[in-house]
Amino acid sequence: MSASEESDAMLEHLIAKEILPQSANWEGTEEFLNRIIQVLLKYIKDQNDRDQKILEFHHPDKMQMLIDTSIPEKPENLLKLVKSCEDVLRLGVRTGHPRFFNQISCGLDLVSMAGEWLTATANTNMFTYEIAPVFILMEKSVMTRMWEAIGWDPEKADGIFAPGGAIANLYAMNAARHQLWPRSKHLGMKDIPTLCCFTSEDSHYSIKSAAAVLGIGADYCFNIPTDKVGKMIPEALEAKIIECKKEGLTPFFACCTAGSTVYGAFDPLERVADICERHKLWFHVDAAWGGGMLLSPEHRYKLAGVERANSVTWNPHKLMGALLQCSACLFRQDGLLFQCNQMSADYLFQQDKPYDVSFDTGDKAIQCGRHNDVFKLWLMWKSKGMEGYRQQINKLMDLANYFTRRIKETEGFQLIVENPEFLNICFWYVPSKIRNLEPAEVRARLEKIAPKIKAGMMQRGTTMVGYQPDKQRPNFFRMIISNQAITREDLDFLIKEIVDIGESLE
Amino acid sequence: MSASEESDAMLEHLIAKEILPQSANWEGTEEFLNRIIQVLLKYIKDQNDRDQKILEFHHPDKMQMLIDTSIPEKPENLLKLVKSCEDVLRLGVRTGHPRFFNQISCGLDLVSMAGEWLTATANTNMFTYEIAPVFILMEKSVMTRMWEAIGWDPEKADGIFAPGGAIANLYAMNAARHQLWPRSKHLGMKDIPTLCCFTSEDSHYSIKSAAAVLGIGADYCFNIPTDKVGKMIPEALEAKIIECKKEGLTPFFACCTAGSTVYGAFDPLERVADICERHKLWFHVDAAWGGGMLLSPEHRYKLAGVERANSVTWNPHKLMGALLQCSACLFRQDGLLFQCNQMSADYLFQQDKPYDVSFDTGDKAIQCGRHNDVFKLWLMWKSKGMEGYRQQINKLMDLANYFTRRIKETEGFQLIVENPEFLNICFWYVPSKIRNLEPAEVRARLEKIAPKIKAGMMQRGTTMVGYQPDKQRPNFFRMIISNQAITREDLDFLIKEIVDIGESLE
Repeated sequence: MSASEESDAMLEHLIAKEILPQSANWEGTEEFLNRIIQVLLKYIKDQNDRDQKILEFHHPDKMQMLIDTSIPEKPENLLKLVKSCEDVLRLGVRTGHPRFFNQISCGLDLVSMAGEWLTATANTNMFTYEIAPVFILMEKSVMTRMWEAIGWDPEKADGIFAPGGAIANLYAMNAARHQLWPRSKHLGMKDIPTLCCFTSEDSHYSIKSAAAVLGIGADYCFNIPTDKVGKMIPEALEAKIIECKKEGLTPFFACCTAGSTVYGAFDPLERVADICERHKLWFHVDAAWGGGMLLSPEHRYKLAGVERANSVTWNPHKLMGALLQCSACLFRQDGLLFQCNQMSADYLFQQDKPYDVSFDTGDKAIQCGRHNDVFKLWLMWKSKGMEGYRQQINKLMDLANYFTRRIKETEGFQLIVENPEFLNICFWYVPSKIRNLEPAEVRARLEKIAPKIKAGMMQRGTTMVGYQPDKQRPNFFRMIISNQAITREDLDFLIKEIVDIGESLE
Repeated sequence: MSASEESDAMLEHLIAKEILPQSANWEGTEEFLNRIIQVLLKYIKDQNDRDQKILEFHHPDKMQMLIDTSIPEKPENLLKLVKSCEDVLRLGVRTGHPRFFNQISCGLDLVSMAGEWLTATANTNMFTYEIAPVFILMEKSVMTRMWEAIGWDPEKADGIFAPGGAIANLYAMNAARHQLWPRSKHLGMKDIPTLCCFTSEDSHYSIKSAAAVLGIGADYCFNIPTDKVGKMIPEALEAKIIECKKEGLTPFFACCTAGSTVYGAFDPLERVADICERHKLWFHVDAAWGGGMLLSPEHRYKLAGVERANSVTWNPHKLMGALLQCSACLFRQDGLLFQCNQMSADYLFQQDKPYDVSFDTGDKAIQCGRHNDVFKLWLMWKSKGMEGYRQQINKLMDLANYFTRRIKETEGFQLIVENPEFLNICFWYVPSKIRNLEPAEVRARLEKIAPKIKAGMMQRGTTMVGYQPDKQRPNFFRMIISNQAITREDLDFLIKEIVDIGESLE
């Protein structure tokens, strides 16, 4: 038997129970884990091979036949588990492929990944210093860099890593309500005036969702109009605040978006901060996507005024390239998060422990058990230093400029926003055979072009990019440049592919 | 140079940038990842060695000197990163050690861990079929087994994996409010009657927290008294519901705990279900801890009536041994989750995609990006089958019975609940020198005994078990038996260690 046949035979005759901790079968454990690692290493290598497909597209009914997702009565042997892992990776979407431009969070930073492997192995709950001593200190250390980047006094700031930007925004709105109306924690919304809040019409839907969840009501989260590049119009915000007050509502929270989901727009933070001060509103900045720009001295000016925010959402799993999930909700004022969320569960957060319990974070969170999201970020950040991030972000911005230039000079492409200020580039491709039709006809046809081109890409498996309509416009592509692996050639490839599929459409 | 010196030299001269995807340095990538894996494998092996310490305890100020958590200006080389990983694991708490009895979630299931390594590598966002085709199908498949275990019709049920049990409980209460008062999503709590809800005084604090977050108010979440073994008293629940109605409140939600955090008590589900039907309340079961018992035909009876629940929280990262985080919030009625949480973000959840978009889960979630929590559970469940879980849970219950027996027969130990019905065993140790004091004096001294014994354990690093007071009683130990690696000898060891430290106290 060859070595690989021997390995197969060994794993085929083992089930998980036989390698579980109590067993002495370390040889089997090691063989199983090493085989998994081989599968993962091959996947990582292939993912960066541009000749490999991004995906092998199958409809749900077909997919269900290609992989047996059912839970069996009897245990499956370890060899079968290894093969399942191979299948799962083969049939999935390679989000780290350099030609995957579909999502805001993409790319596979290997150091962050190594960090997540360690996190899994340590399997630590983040709620007390007692069980997560090192990770709790790291969380503070990493947040300190983030507070400094925002421009806050780290001695007075606070924050928490939350499971995703939407929950981070929820944390912020909840804390804002608590600061202004602490009674609501105990007595609910009935006991306080009717609150309302504001966010731009191009902001992320999680702001509205937070208002719905918190019992404020999605309809009391008002959409403020944006200008033609997608930035909130401050005059419109102030007019709406005044109108709400006249109607007897109590404005309490305004959200600026720093890097909007579709257009990548940055709202005018300074001007909104002024308005919030004037009307005594909590000023939140949803920088889930754009927060990483604070690490580039060259591009940081787009977030000028962020230091005036009461809270900031910043997702290192987006621009900074940390693995999912890694989102921080940061607060200028220390103490509030604790007051807002603590439920005094003595049975979990005892005060008579043999160490300084101010390091216990459990009572600051809405969650009880909390995943360790910080280690992968910490390890990655160490691997780059402040200098590395500066370079990385500047490089992505350069690529975005290159792509924008290429779009402008290539026939058939039309930009939605003439000079995108971030890493989102929104555009149409207008196939030659419809270019000379009446504008209304072009528009009607365009609605269907992007979905068809995308379907073509997915069939070919060569590249992926998202599309959507907006209020005034038919479906357009939204290109995202956030993967560190992207080169100019990849961007040229995308343009060529869109032209190729677009021209071949019936 | 030896092979290990060569490896060190290679990694010392590389920084992350040089192994990032765009680079051709596959050799360096492989070397770095293999070194990380070696560190992890050694950790896994040592963790099961009972001669190794569970932790090396240091106070926060000392810990800060042992590991440099700061983020540097310049990148750190790959060798330094590998060494950091070693340090972090050395200075952390080995939650998978067979003598770590501190937390409800513990033990390191190697297959689940392998699953999480793959999850990290695939780095997939769970919000649409488009980018997570295989994982989305798995989520459905795994939930189907859970719905069946509860006793629901899988054709009509729904659910979502949430980041922890507290958020799962929040999902449930939010859906309950939506079903009864759909207007609240849009118009908030002002527009509807004053809601109130009920949970036992021994339930998890996340129920009260959900009421606070949702704008209902923590004070409108009423604590129902429990009997002497920690079960909710149904008569007291019904009396409180009637009283609330008389006072003009609108009762809408009652929560039963199936496996309470401290005592491991199971509330009387059938009787509470009757009351909820009679008064038209949403019936939620927080089985975060006890849900796994549904997989044991022998012990399942403790959750009889769970099929009558409208929603169930069930954390596979607790009894089932999946890695953190893995929590499901399950619903008997399909469609509600979607109605409650969808915000119609057309730009993310387009309806004109080239596949059946009913597989897209994004709009059911409060989160937007969502971590893949299902794969590690799926792989682990495959590795055990239904049969494996039955055995695993029965074995843990047997160990709990053994430990209880040993506690009863060993001098100086006193049980809090005479016959624990689950895997929590709560007890005092009364050192011989205080046994003959006046009861009031014993009680006063006892308050300090458990913290001192625990501090002694942590100094020795041999074992860990939690303690807390309750309303009537001074600090007592809460032993948790949920790690598959535990043997009878480990339990004997704990008893011996407590006696040893306890007797040596001043």
